[in-house]
Amino acid sequence: MNFTIIPKKNGLENVDGFFFDGKCAGFKKDEPDVGFIYSDNPCRVSAVFTTNKFMASPIKHFKRYGQNFETNFILLNSKNANAMTGEKGVEDIDEILSYIDLPLKNPIMSSTGVIGYRLDIDRFKKVIKEFDFSSKNSDAVARAIMTTDSFKKELALEVTLSDGKKFNIASIAKGAGMINPAMATMLCFVLTDSDIPKEDMDELLKEAVDESFNKISVDGDTSTNDTVMLLTSAKNPYQKEAFKEALNFILFELSQMILRDGEGANKVVAFEVKGAKSVEEAKRASKALSNSLLVKTALFGEDPNWGRIASTIGASGVECDEDTLEIYYDELLIYGKDKRELDSDTEEKAYNIMRQDSFKITCNLNIGKGSYTSYGCDLSYEYVKINAEYRT
Amino acid sequence: MNFTIIPKKNGLENVDGFFFDGKCAGFKKDEPDVGFIYSDNPCRVSAVFTTNKFMASPIKHFKRYGQNFETNFILLNSKNANAMTGEKGVEDIDEILSYIDLPLKNPIMSSTGVIGYRLDIDRFKKVIKEFDFSSKNSDAVARAIMTTDSFKKELALEVTLSDGKKFNIASIAKGAGMINPAMATMLCFVLTDSDIPKEDMDELLKEAVDESFNKISVDGDTSTNDTVMLLTSAKNPYQKEAFKEALNFILFELSQMILRDGEGANKVVAFEVKGAKSVEEAKRASKALSNSLLVKTALFGEDPNWGRIASTIGASGVECDEDTLEIYYDELLIYGKDKRELDSDTEEKAYNIMRQDSFKITCNLNIGKGSYTSYGCDLSYEYVKINAEYRT
Repeated sequence: MNFTIIPKKNGLENVDGFFFDGKCAGFKKDEPDVGFIYSDNPCRVSAVFTTNKFMASPIKHFKRYGQNFETNFILLNSKNANAMTGEKGVEDIDEILSYIDLPLKNPIMSSTGVIGYRLDIDRFKKVIKEFDFSSKNSDAVARAIMTTDSFKKELALEVTLSDGKKFNIASIAKGAGMINPAMATMLCFVLTDSDIPKEDMDELLKEAVDESFNKISVDGDTSTNDTVMLLTSAKNPYQKEAFKEALNFILFELSQMILRDGEGANKVVAFEVKGAKSVEEAKRASKALSNSLLVKTALFGEDPNWGRIASTIGASGVECDEDTLEIYYDELLIYGKDKRELDSDTEEKAYNIMRQDSFKITCNLNIGKGSYTSYGCDLSYEYVKINAEYRT
Repeated sequence: MNFTIIPKKNGLENVDGFFFDGKCAGFKKDEPDVGFIYSDNPCRVSAVFTTNKFMASPIKHFKRYGQNFETNFILLNSKNANAMTGEKGVEDIDEILSYIDLPLKNPIMSSTGVIGYRLDIDRFKKVIKEFDFSSKNSDAVARAIMTTDSFKKELALEVTLSDGKKFNIASIAKGAGMINPAMATMLCFVLTDSDIPKEDMDELLKEAVDESFNKISVDGDTSTNDTVMLLTSAKNPYQKEAFKEALNFILFELSQMILRDGEGANKVVAFEVKGAKSVEEAKRASKALSNSLLVKTALFGEDPNWGRIASTIGASGVECDEDTLEIYYDELLIYGKDKRELDSDTEEKAYNIMRQDSFKITCNLNIGKGSYTSYGCDLSYEYVKINAEYRT
């Protein structure tokens, strides 16, 4: 490897050319709820959005700019998704952005929160006046996009190339509920100062999202607002392999943080399916496991009940056979053709594995060569409580 | 209508030609856990089974008899599904059935409970000796198949034809968890004395299952053991329209009872999707609603949060448009193009509708003519508790 990557503190503050902050507009109590990201020069931008047919207004607004454009400003908010608000929802964004006293180029907005309410323009107008567009406060902007998140998600890496030159890449994200195979209710903004060409941005961002956010599931629901965005100030050098590794690392780590913070979740579990007829079948079975309510409650109960794992595989519709299937918890064989009933020794060992904060369940179908790993969490009382009371 | 249908008490006891009972073999504490259904003459039988690839041993055993056979005996048990038990699981059934001292013809077994354990043959051998094969105890056999069910499910109808002749049809069922579009973890036995031909049995049973069990969802999981079976002693007359109506009524009512008894469920909700591009799209959207964790927790919280309904429709992948969509709670319009934000009057009315034991959510996509209704329930703390602690 002809480059080195080291983690840095203070998130976005490591990246050259960007300014950002978060303030309280009164949507939350004494916590930042509106934030911005500003760059002195227009930036190349690449984005991956929700697959939900009801795209929120900020996404419709973004798409009006077409495929190739540069931007120097993103306004962010939580508590209101500006989704299902019709044409008025898009007009509200234009109006709010018009109050920003900066030379804006193709400004963007990104929102998360409750669906079905218009934005409160007066509050935005007021908070915008309080912004100092030369500040660099990664903590405040990261907190401004949090909804049911219990902790802030930010990560920064410094990449040193073989010639000693450096570039930086950093990200903030929010997640928690409605996280699902199709990258649901999450926002993630990645800033870099590496001079990455637009076509590499598009290619590498899509790949990195497939290997991270698209592999996690909290509850199988997909939101109207999901956004992963990459912007570059292009002030420092670029090297594809190094950038790819850093971006993949950041998005994977953020996706795991989101999963660990899944509403009411106590543990993160990797569901590896291998020996499937094809990668598609492995993926289908793996995602069925990470989305199954019965599997998720068994994880919460720390019950080594492999029957629910097997039943979910069988119900997923993939080719499988109870005489070739093997199920492992970490390295422990818990089900196989010649080891069907749980003996007390295996049960004790399995229970100790399940008590960990994270572990791996491997299902080897022993039929073909397809494999896929997705990541899920348990379902607790707390999830039900958070989501029964979300709006109140 | 040239026939009348009236409900009767005492379940299976109304049907001529069958004997049944349930006893405690010690799998449960002082409650029936093994039961039988016996007929003095061999019966035509029709069955619909799980779509889970890992079919339980009793289903493999049944299928050995081929498509057309007659039987005079079914042995039933709860607490052990005899699933994922391999060839031995099928051999165990043959051994257990060999201890029954009757002239058996193609005897059947049907099991529900935990996956992955062999049946305890000695306990079956012992309880079989206690059976009186001339008893008619519908209550005991209905209770013998209960697992997490909180109440017994049985229903009987007497059908009088225009010439004054009668036939009877009655059923017992068990359900509760793992109830899902693909008719999961439920057992249902329908007995009749109507002389229905085999081909009508197959046709009408399949239709009735599609209109009942295949439309309900407790948690979206599909089990290894699902079985709906229809047997006839053929002692009384048959008339197709009358039989069809009675069978549809029985299976629909039992499916609603199972849903109402969904683990920890407090309310039953009908999810009607209409105006879809096709029936298939209406079905996909309707089932997405009845399976969504976020919708289910909003129902539990009695929160008129139509945003989750809309978001789930959008995520289901069906053709839809936020400007044509309308959402109703019972008859109350809660979302439409010109009525997006919830006003306090509508919210109050919606809340009062949601507080009911059952209500209907209608989503009119206003695009085409496809419609479909599925039925779901809320997700409560109790569901998590029951399923975290199921085996213990």
